[in-house]
Amino acid sequence: MKEKHIEDAAKAFGTQLRNLRLEVDLSQEELAFRTGVSPNHIGYIERAERNPKLDLINKIAFALRVQPATLFTTIEVPSDLDEHGERPTGQ
Amino acid sequence: MKEKHIEDAAKAFGTQLRNLRLEVDLSQEELAFRTGVSPNHIGYIERAERNPKLDLINKIAFALRVQPATLFTTIEVPSDLDEHGERPTGQ
Repeated sequence: MKEKHIEDAAKAFGTQLRNLRLEVDLSQEELAFRTGVSPNHIGYIERAERNPKLDLINKIAFALRVQPATLFTTIEVPSDLDEHGERPTGQ
Repeated sequence: MKEKHIEDAAKAFGTQLRNLRLEVDLSQEELAFRTGVSPNHIGYIERAERNPKLDLINKIAFALRVQPATLFTTIEVPSDLDEHGERPTGQ
């Protein structure tokens, strides 16, 4: 099972993608066509039901004419320790 | 063959990951351990020889204690038209 903060991050990413897509008035089908994926694929990503790879993420951003980082800005960084109970700067 | 702007984006991502990892003085092996991938995997991503998925990208960012968008900020958005010769806002 996926950790909650990773699941939350995927949901924030999907919602942000959907909002950015609607801002430029692009259908899921048209964005899918422009990024070379199947028509349903964008909807799956927007609902966090798919785990897209880096290249597709960048293609999506470029098709939306946004900097790829824009797709990630709504993700919250968990304030607790990492999964191994360590802080990267405190080994 | 991968389009050049997608290849450039993956290289910028990998270089940025490497720089952020070195900033917090974390080895590739330790970051791999913290994100649940094999020891060589982080090096492959840093050299743009792997295409990591969204969940792993977010895990890497959280292990580095950075907002995931930070990994993408050095990617340049291509100024030319998209691969279908259309502008998303001008269909």
